[in-house]
Amino acid sequence: MHEAIALAEEAGLEGEVPVGAVAVHDGVAVGRGRNRRETANDPFAHAEMEALAHAVRALGRWRLTGVTLYVTLEPCSMCVGAMLAARAARVVWGASSPKAGALGGLLDMTAAAHNHRFEKSGGVAAEACAELLKRFFTGLRRGED
Amino acid sequence: MHEAIALAEEAGLEGEVPVGAVAVHDGVAVGRGRNRRETANDPFAHAEMEALAHAVRALGRWRLTGVTLYVTLEPCSMCVGAMLAARAARVVWGASSPKAGALGGLLDMTAAAHNHRFEKSGGVAAEACAELLKRFFTGLRRGED
Repeated sequence: MHEAIALAEEAGLEGEVPVGAVAVHDGVAVGRGRNRRETANDPFAHAEMEALAHAVRALGRWRLTGVTLYVTLEPCSMCVGAMLAARAARVVWGASSPKAGALGGLLDMTAAAHNHRFEKSGGVAAEACAELLKRFFTGLRRGED
Repeated sequence: MHEAIALAEEAGLEGEVPVGAVAVHDGVAVGRGRNRRETANDPFAHAEMEALAHAVRALGRWRLTGVTLYVTLEPCSMCVGAMLAARAARVVWGASSPKAGALGGLLDMTAAAHNHRFEKSGGVAAEACAELLKRFFTGLRRGED
């Protein structure tokens, strides 16, 4: 999660909502991502999508069996759907997202009987992750004054 | 939808589950996609993701305001999440998907209070779309004999 936070900080420095993600397999980071929606002009360039896509390439297979995704913010429905599509094993997230979180924040997608299930743990280093977001949005609001 | 069905047929000929999608803006097709999960070894290479990504590039903006997505099969949760992330305006689909559909088939993601809403209509040319899938899976089962 430490590395995911560092990636989130990088995103923030680029003017992006600070979210970072790392995909880990057998204790080794096989994918890294940070939010790049604005800089890449790509609505799908969420940290999680990038980290999962990197992991697919690194492992050379589309099934991400045994892969844990660490992400600083509770994933949205697209990213939870992507974890299901890629058969990822586990997700660990920091701050919860009442506006868009699909693991209990706004909705809980894992309540439906999908053909794949994964483990999930939220609230890991939540304060540090939330503080990053808070500072970013406070900065934005100050910029608007 | 006619063009989406043709793209689904192409996917089927490549040994992929036959799903096709077309993104339309102002009456013009700005994105086309077909399922390429196996050939691209990419769990995110769903027809919808490809068509939406093409539309983003064609329109030069990440917000797909005014874009309708035509797809032969009810989208999964990742693809519905992608439509929300991209602020797409409308989705029209053919066959319903009780196993993975996120617009009422398995779950209805639009029931949650997302920060974006889109119009949706299912069951368009549903028989032709479902027939394609049925033929594909019947062929697979025969191949297994």
